[in-house]
Amino acid sequence: MRLRVTVWGENVHESRDPQVRAIYPDGMHGTIAAALREQLDADVRTATLQEPEHGLTEDVLGATDVLTWWGHIAHDEVSDAVVDRVQQAVLGGMGLLVLHSGHYSKVFQRLLGTSCGLQWRNEGERELVWTVAPGHPIAQGVPQPIVIERQEMYGEPFDIPAPDELVFISSFAGGEVFRGGCCFLRGRGRIFYFSPGDQEYPVYHHPDVQRVLANGVRWAAPVRVP
Amino acid sequence: MRLRVTVWGENVHESRDPQVRAIYPDGMHGTIAAALREQLDADVRTATLQEPEHGLTEDVLGATDVLTWWGHIAHDEVSDAVVDRVQQAVLGGMGLLVLHSGHYSKVFQRLLGTSCGLQWRNEGERELVWTVAPGHPIAQGVPQPIVIERQEMYGEPFDIPAPDELVFISSFAGGEVFRGGCCFLRGRGRIFYFSPGDQEYPVYHHPDVQRVLANGVRWAAPVRVP
Amino acid sequence: MRLRVTVWGENVHESRDPQVRAIYPDGMHGTIAAALREQLDADVRTATLQEPEHGLTEDVLGATDVLTWWGHIAHDEVSDAVVDRVQQAVLGGMGLLVLHSGHYSKVFQRLLGTSCGLQWRNEGERELVWTVAPGHPIAQGVPQPIVIERQEMYGEPFDIPAPDELVFISSFAGGEVFRGGCCFLRGRGRIFYFSPGDQEYPVYHHPDVQRVLANGVRWAAPVRVP
Amino acid sequence: MRLRVTVWGENVHESRDPQVRAIYPDGMHGTIAAALREQLDADVRTATLQEPEHGLTEDVLGATDVLTWWGHIAHDEVSDAVVDRVQQAVLGGMGLLVLHSGHYSKVFQRLLGTSCGLQWRNEGERELVWTVAPGHPIAQGVPQPIVIERQEMYGEPFDIPAPDELVFISSFAGGEVFRGGCCFLRGRGRIFYFSPGDQEYPVYHHPDVQRVLANGVRWAAPVRVP
Repeated sequence: MRLRVTVWGENVHESRDPQVRAIYPDGMHGTIAAALREQLDADVRTATLQEPEHGLTEDVLGATDVLTWWGHIAHDEVSDAVVDRVQQAVLGGMGLLVLHSGHYSKVFQRLLGTSCGLQWRNEGERELVWTVAPGHPIAQGVPQPIVIERQEMYGEPFDIPAPDELVFISSFAGGEVFRGGCCFLRGRGRIFYFSPGDQEYPVYHHPDVQRVLANGVRWAAPVRVP
Repeated sequence: MRLRVTVWGENVHESRDPQVRAIYPDGMHGTIAAALREQLDADVRTATLQEPEHGLTEDVLGATDVLTWWGHIAHDEVSDAVVDRVQQAVLGGMGLLVLHSGHYSKVFQRLLGTSCGLQWRNEGERELVWTVAPGHPIAQGVPQPIVIERQEMYGEPFDIPAPDELVFISSFAGGEVFRGGCCFLRGRGRIFYFSPGDQEYPVYHHPDVQRVLANGVRWAAPVRVP
Repeated sequence: MRLRVTVWGENVHESRDPQVRAIYPDGMHGTIAAALREQLDADVRTATLQEPEHGLTEDVLGATDVLTWWGHIAHDEVSDAVVDRVQQAVLGGMGLLVLHSGHYSKVFQRLLGTSCGLQWRNEGERELVWTVAPGHPIAQGVPQPIVIERQEMYGEPFDIPAPDELVFISSFAGGEVFRGGCCFLRGRGRIFYFSPGDQEYPVYHHPDVQRVLANGVRWAAPVRVP
Repeated sequence: MRLRVTVWGENVHESRDPQVRAIYPDGMHGTIAAALREQLDADVRTATLQEPEHGLTEDVLGATDVLTWWGHIAHDEVSDAVVDRVQQAVLGGMGLLVLHSGHYSKVFQRLLGTSCGLQWRNEGERELVWTVAPGHPIAQGVPQPIVIERQEMYGEPFDIPAPDELVFISSFAGGEVFRGGCCFLRGRGRIFYFSPGDQEYPVYHHPDVQRVLANGVRWAAPVRVP
């Protein structure tokens, strides 16, 4: 059976901020979905905050192997009922990719139990993403380091439980470090957090970032053993 | 400064069920508190569900180094505001011991993010508690195994994140196994889950169990470095 | 490319002990190899202690994706040069399954750094193998529990580093428990230790055990991302 | 009983290289020992490669709670018998601090089972040591970040097993990152690896580095429960 991916986007900056729309005319979710379609043999659909039930009905989640989540300024507008539903789906085996500012999403906080707080500074500085687990499936085909010319800085301490596997650590031009590629196993579900991806920079057009997202989706997909 | 411990008890079975009151005339919280007073150089107080704010006001939590939690049939009566407060206190550094049926407490589920479900059967069977981490502080002075003549069976799978440290594994007369002594680090706080302790059996009078509780409190206490 | 598996057997009990030969006329390695051939789309060969370089030349290891290892009474006869070679191959990405009494093999001790000691008693008692990580690839298709009627008891404490993932815990009729299914990540390699399998009992003929071995080989195989 | 610490030094650069002697007239081991004496209520002695049995006889190890290890160009001159002895002592409960280039010591490789390889470049660049586990005992009283003006760069991938606890991550002026503060539990022993400390720079005179060493010794000391 083909892999079924749902790319969820908050879709607020894209409608409101001309600079963001200039970078992501199809929305960040549109760009991410297109990249996954290109790299994976998968059925990829999108869903957004503005749709009924944020586009994440029981039916949609029931037909999703891996969900990706990008949100930023509207975390509070996500209904608790949908958060419950996503949490249950993950514990039941659905994979989840949480992207960048999604660290403060209700879904991520709910699944991890910590504040998920971090340090940040937005000056468009260079981020280097270093692989610390070279044998990990998510790191395959990725240069050492990935160079992202302009990004928001995310810094430690990052208030998360110790990840079950740590794949990437970033450094920033200002000298900070960040555990930006973290795997968590919760229930039967696999969660991958990946920090690059601020809306003000074209990070999701970056081929290495797209590669990580595709690898992440493959890794997070439910296990199917013959 | 002396260690400050608050022993929280749901205190429902003790008021309602004569058999439980016969075993625990001072409540399970009373027995646990007395044991900790005897074994630790600590100020130990109790708090119960029935008190205003369940006895867990900001002031009480602010003056608590380690909180122990026993609940069973009234998990839903614990107010979400108190759950929020306990969660914040733990992330800020307060230690937490979650005991037996407390696995289904809102507090534990909130901090772990999973269902915390398990298998169970109550036939008063023998539980053996085996140390798998003999160098761990919580296992010091504990026999291999601890023998508990009559207990409720708790069995795998136990739907928790992989513990940061696994200290004890139990087996039961029926053949089941259970990860009954688990350490979790969340924020600055240390959480120890310990499964022995059903209300129908005199488990908290057992000297080895009392030893584990005292060791657990010591381990969970916030770090104080000169 | 098809998966390439090498099944290594110490092959001493089989030549020496009639009761073992009665159970494993083709050697334990022969039975394991046949089971893997049946369950996997893989090229499976065998190698034994008695062959030059124990059958594990550079060429053989260079053409092996996953190596399985069973040894017991002749651990000391394995040459250090071969142990070095296997260690390097694992760190370079070759998968390794260490079976039963292989816990005391030089290869396992070398890769883990601890004594790998455990408790044991051989009275042919019942072992139950419980899954504690139901979403793990190695646990797919496996009953809860696997029932092995007669086995040697292995008990805690098992002196290993905390496994990167704990999949199975066994209990024995005598009440002991054992972390019998453990995953370790070392370098680029994946190591799975699985405890059932004493030479005196027909454990490797057990269909559920064979299933675990096949799942383990799939899991330990080097990652190939398109 | 007072804590008993043995500071082991390779003591080759100090005798051979005038620049190193200028920084460490009493040897690096002398500077480290003095710092620990100042910060801890402990008996601190030193031992060096050149002494019989490298100063690490059974008697010395038997009277050592925590051993610290600095070596660089003479790893191969450490006898295997002493390596065996140190490994056994650690598994039996002695704490071990492995410092900087000690990552390639036989002792560390033996206990971890991996190559312990890393990237490096010696241009005397700035290292920032970031705390990622703010509640960890080893991070108490340490600024965020520790600033070391001149250091050798150590970079990822660092070929170690996933640490049981990750405390510090460093960044370098060149942009690299390194898991420079790692805790490992092996047998009953606690191992702390701390990367700052090249012989060409006065790193062990740095008050924050001294603080980490003292915290590390406290953390690694065997558990004594009343």
